[in-house]
Amino acid sequence: MTVLAVDIGGTKFAAAAVAPDGEMLARTEVPLRGPESAGRTLSEVVRRITDRVAPDRLDGIGVGSAGPLDPRRGRVSPVNIPTWRDFPLVDALGETLPGRPVRLAGDAQCMALGEWWRGLTGPVPDGPAGRSRAMLGMVVSTGVGGGLVLDGVPYVGPTGNAGHIGHITVDPGGEPCPCGGVGCVETIASGPGMVRWAAANGWTGADARALAADARAGHPTAVRAFERAAGALATAVLTASALFDLDDVVVGGGVAAAGPILFDPLRRAIGRNTGLGFLRRLRVEPTSLGRDAGLFGAAALVLLQGGA
Amino acid sequence: MTVLAVDIGGTKFAAAAVAPDGEMLARTEVPLRGPESAGRTLSEVVRRITDRVAPDRLDGIGVGSAGPLDPRRGRVSPVNIPTWRDFPLVDALGETLPGRPVRLAGDAQCMALGEWWRGLTGPVPDGPAGRSRAMLGMVVSTGVGGGLVLDGVPYVGPTGNAGHIGHITVDPGGEPCPCGGVGCVETIASGPGMVRWAAANGWTGADARALAADARAGHPTAVRAFERAAGALATAVLTASALFDLDDVVVGGGVAAAGPILFDPLRRAIGRNTGLGFLRRLRVEPTSLGRDAGLFGAAALVLLQGGA
Repeated sequence: MTVLAVDIGGTKFAAAAVAPDGEMLARTEVPLRGPESAGRTLSEVVRRITDRVAPDRLDGIGVGSAGPLDPRRGRVSPVNIPTWRDFPLVDALGETLPGRPVRLAGDAQCMALGEWWRGLTGPVPDGPAGRSRAMLGMVVSTGVGGGLVLDGVPYVGPTGNAGHIGHITVDPGGEPCPCGGVGCVETIASGPGMVRWAAANGWTGADARALAADARAGHPTAVRAFERAAGALATAVLTASALFDLDDVVVGGGVAAAGPILFDPLRRAIGRNTGLGFLRRLRVEPTSLGRDAGLFGAAALVLLQGGA
Repeated sequence: MTVLAVDIGGTKFAAAAVAPDGEMLARTEVPLRGPESAGRTLSEVVRRITDRVAPDRLDGIGVGSAGPLDPRRGRVSPVNIPTWRDFPLVDALGETLPGRPVRLAGDAQCMALGEWWRGLTGPVPDGPAGRSRAMLGMVVSTGVGGGLVLDGVPYVGPTGNAGHIGHITVDPGGEPCPCGGVGCVETIASGPGMVRWAAANGWTGADARALAADARAGHPTAVRAFERAAGALATAVLTASALFDLDDVVVGGGVAAAGPILFDPLRRAIGRNTGLGFLRRLRVEPTSLGRDAGLFGAAALVLLQGGA
């Protein structure tokens, strides 16, 4: 079976037709021009794929969406798309290709599953050869999200919300988070969180991209902002590893794309605090699939789960 | 099938014969008189059970042990039993009842499974009726340990070490932990951690039991020590809930036995920081099985998993 994969982001929608062997037969991406255009943009990405791959070749639909979402009811309420509140995304996609199963998961959950399926393939150093048996995928961007793949199956939890690593407290004396918590990872390590801290410490740039450029150029406040984010991410990664006994963490998203200025202090901070023996095998890697990880994962929701 | 359940603690060993319906046909407990007597004590608890339940009625052995442990190799190295380092516990028990399957897990993992099987039976308020679909069991005592039961199956992770909630960082500015981390839950919320903090703040009592008595009597430093422990446990519980999408947390162990002086501030701290909707259904309860939870869980390792 070939699958229609859809990725609902806060600023763009993407879609692809993905064959069982992982080949992308077609791929498209459309920026979201204002929240009121969400419905139109959804139709457009689907149509662009069905123009190139005959609908009767598509046997299922997998979709990853920015959250919050309610997978049991097939509904989504992406924070950055205020016109979609409790929007019946599964039904809407089911109407585009009637009769096909539709599988929905969070965007970071799809990213994690995509990396598990098509990205990470090497053996785990300290374990049996083969794929990662316990993997966390993280998206570090305007928010911080996560998804788990345990024994090759996405672990989404009873309500579909497992993996909310952006909203664990890593600094109990830190700033309040809109989620209601305090010192959440997202307040420190998201792009806006880093920019907010840098601005409060005298940095005058525009956004996270400029902050990354300044950090690469050695601007002390920018470097410190990335070190601070890396420290928060290290605590989060070690926490998840202690709880899930992780083999691998894969990090994607815009902030992670900054590269060594994030990953070098991240790996140092993890190394400093890794005393427990079972944590030492942990691998922390940047995404190998970039923006396609979410599409591969959405396809895998159907392809690896039988699509029933 | 009836199962021999064994619980290897740091200060006592317990054993029971448990029928498939959860009835305890026999139960015994022997204090550990010095680490050099561990082997003798193990033989004694087993013999006390086989004296009362004929060995040919026992079809399998389940054992929970203080850690660290290596379940793949059936070996344990309990911190408080220095004579057992990489001790082949599974083989040792297998020799007592040759030919029976032996299943090994951590003591907190067994506590969690025992609570899932015999303790928690009510429906989850915001979910389908039935047992907890994602449960954390915590043992708060001289250490802080944890175990997960996901969809009715213990989740132990690739190396068997999942659930190490005592060693997640909840205070990055806190004291170093022997594990190599900083500000771990265990440094704050374990009995010794609480007593250490209280002593440093002028309290002059002997141990955690005295601290609990003083807290109940309203001694401000003792009350504050329990509030501080409750705060650390609340962060840990909310963290695990955000990552596992938990229905339930069950807390046992000596410190938890202190009752409302711990659970009242624990529930308050959790309530203060619960913004995410899916966290609001979380139930946090003291153990309903007391010291038997670990024995029930050890039995369940065999009874619920088929014993193969």
